Amino acid sequence: MIETILLKKRPVGEPTLDNFEFEKETDTPAPSEGELLLETKYVSVDPYIRGRMSAAKSYVAPYEVGQPLSSGVVAKVLVSKNDNFEEGEFVSGLLEWKSQQVNNGEGLQKVSEDKAPLSAYLGIVGMTGLTAFLGLHEIGKPKKGETLVVSGAAGAVGSVVGQIGKILGLNVIGIAGSDEKTEMLTSEFGFDHAINYKTTEDMKAAIEEAAPNGVDIYFDNVGGPISDAVLYSINRFARIIICGAISVYNKTETPKGLAVQPFLVKNSALMQGFIVSNYAEKFPEAINQLASWLQDGKLKYKETIVEGFENTPQAFLDLMNGKNKGKMIVKA
Amino acid sequence: MIETILLKKRPVGEPTLDNFEFEKETDTPAPSEGELLLETKYVSVDPYIRGRMSAAKSYVAPYEVGQPLSSGVVAKVLVSKNDNFEEGEFVSGLLEWKSQQVNNGEGLQKVSEDKAPLSAYLGIVGMTGLTAFLGLHEIGKPKKGETLVVSGAAGAVGSVVGQIGKILGLNVIGIAGSDEKTEMLTSEFGFDHAINYKTTEDMKAAIEEAAPNGVDIYFDNVGGPISDAVLYSINRFARIIICGAISVYNKTETPKGLAVQPFLVKNSALMQGFIVSNYAEKFPEAINQLASWLQDGKLKYKETIVEGFENTPQAFLDLMNGKNKGKMIVKA
Repeated sequence: MIETILLKKRPVGEPTLDNFEFEKETDTPAPSEGELLLETKYVSVDPYIRGRMSAAKSYVAPYEVGQPLSSGVVAKVLVSKNDNFEEGEFVSGLLEWKSQQVNNGEGLQKVSEDKAPLSAYLGIVGMTGLTAFLGLHEIGKPKKGETLVVSGAAGAVGSVVGQIGKILGLNVIGIAGSDEKTEMLTSEFGFDHAINYKTTEDMKAAIEEAAPNGVDIYFDNVGGPISDAVLYSINRFARIIICGAISVYNKTETPKGLAVQPFLVKNSALMQGFIVSNYAEKFPEAINQLASWLQDGKLKYKETIVEGFENTPQAFLDLMNGKNKGKMIVKA
Repeated sequence: MIETILLKKRPVGEPTLDNFEFEKETDTPAPSEGELLLETKYVSVDPYIRGRMSAAKSYVAPYEVGQPLSSGVVAKVLVSKNDNFEEGEFVSGLLEWKSQQVNNGEGLQKVSEDKAPLSAYLGIVGMTGLTAFLGLHEIGKPKKGETLVVSGAAGAVGSVVGQIGKILGLNVIGIAGSDEKTEMLTSEFGFDHAINYKTTEDMKAAIEEAAPNGVDIYFDNVGGPISDAVLYSINRFARIIICGAISVYNKTETPKGLAVQPFLVKNSALMQGFIVSNYAEKFPEAINQLASWLQDGKLKYKETIVEGFENTPQAFLDLMNGKNKGKMIVKA
């Protein structure tokens, strides 16, 4: 039996299980010449999915109501009628939320259990690691000795950003939402400082204290009041990487915040939206670097793995509510 | 008699004449070996002066209470004990608000009436022109056929930005605060469209209508609600140059506005604070280009010239209230 997860209706504000619909078919689809039959093994759930559930123009096309959702998936080739793939191989790519599906193989990457666990291709050696590595390098342009602040630091991207920062010799400050997470950042991931924004009354003062020399790079995964507080500490020529904005995805009204322009002009600072897919030509080199750091034990990663393909919508909702530690993945 | 204009007290909110103080001396200062005696001919008043009147950290040091203010000045060499300058020559540089002053010549540029009128060295072939040219090129990276929006478009910098945009083959939209100004932008400065923000109820709709293909470059001279409205029209990979923020200089509380982060991330867009002094190594080439365009009649400029050195504070206040057309200059 083949199970598909569809967008039932677009969410207004916070999404719920009512926004999703399940469809079951009993016929196994048959690949034509040049096609593959794939079996889903791991599904990535990510904050950007919330954006695609809305009809609004964004950097990726919205999902269609009544059609399957899609995201990063690792799948096994069950049947191959495509010369580039063999049965039994594993592939990674943007695929539909279906337990089995036919695909023509375009845009799929072969992945191997020898170099890294299969789930890691949805995380540390996949889009998560690439987002951290390329966002930090291409916009952040880090220089040894500088101070890096990361928000959403215990999340999939944030924890990798901080570790890369340490590898590059930066002073790294993480912001996260529980004592358990901040403890993890400093003791396991090697961050120099970590701030729990839920128990800190004056975030501006806390950042000033953690970054006495000011902030050179801010890797912003959250937006909102946390990011406003960081602005007071930015240095001359600071670089701010806007990488998603979980705190505003659910808002139905366009949110207000501190006007950033006076901070940017006073400090000749830069703020730039980062979408990893714009840097595709840099992926191979970045993946090699990430895999090498991983094999050398310089990069650690956390996964929250939810069992059962049918739990993908709930896993996504849990991600949006910060219940994950590290990359959130569904094991089909 | 030598007249000096001092900062009497720092303004809270909008500055008034009470923030300034006049001092008169009867003794003419005598230059020592290596020094010059200068007579002020033209004084530039600029929005950044408001920032320096406050004690807060900014990109230039605050003025000291009880000390002379300073800004761009064109002066005549009355006495020279410096081998690099001759009596009767004219110089341009950052000088104190004094009718006569002694200076060691460091950082002063010789200027000549042959290439351009003396007052133009405080404007179109001075910091104003350089700010427009380098801000547009270094951050805006304009490409022929793109759409450029300029706020504060009838101001000194804005009117030059728009004209350079037209020289480079851009579609240029100006935003200004009166019908007289918008008429000037299209009929005299060659802007394609101009929007009067004071009489336009829905700025977002007006910008969408004037820029049906979206906005690639936004040269932001004002900040505030006008800039918020532009965000809705920015294109993928848009570049936003934050060049001063007149609308927020007078605010005692840090202003709020539309959160820019979602717009930047959705469009992979960039927003960067621009301070012309960071690009000093590009000045000579830029001045040559500006002077050449000026001599070819491709660049027009407007000056509002106020007569009388003693009227410098009032000229500055008038500038802050938008009473100027083009560059505001005091003729001493």
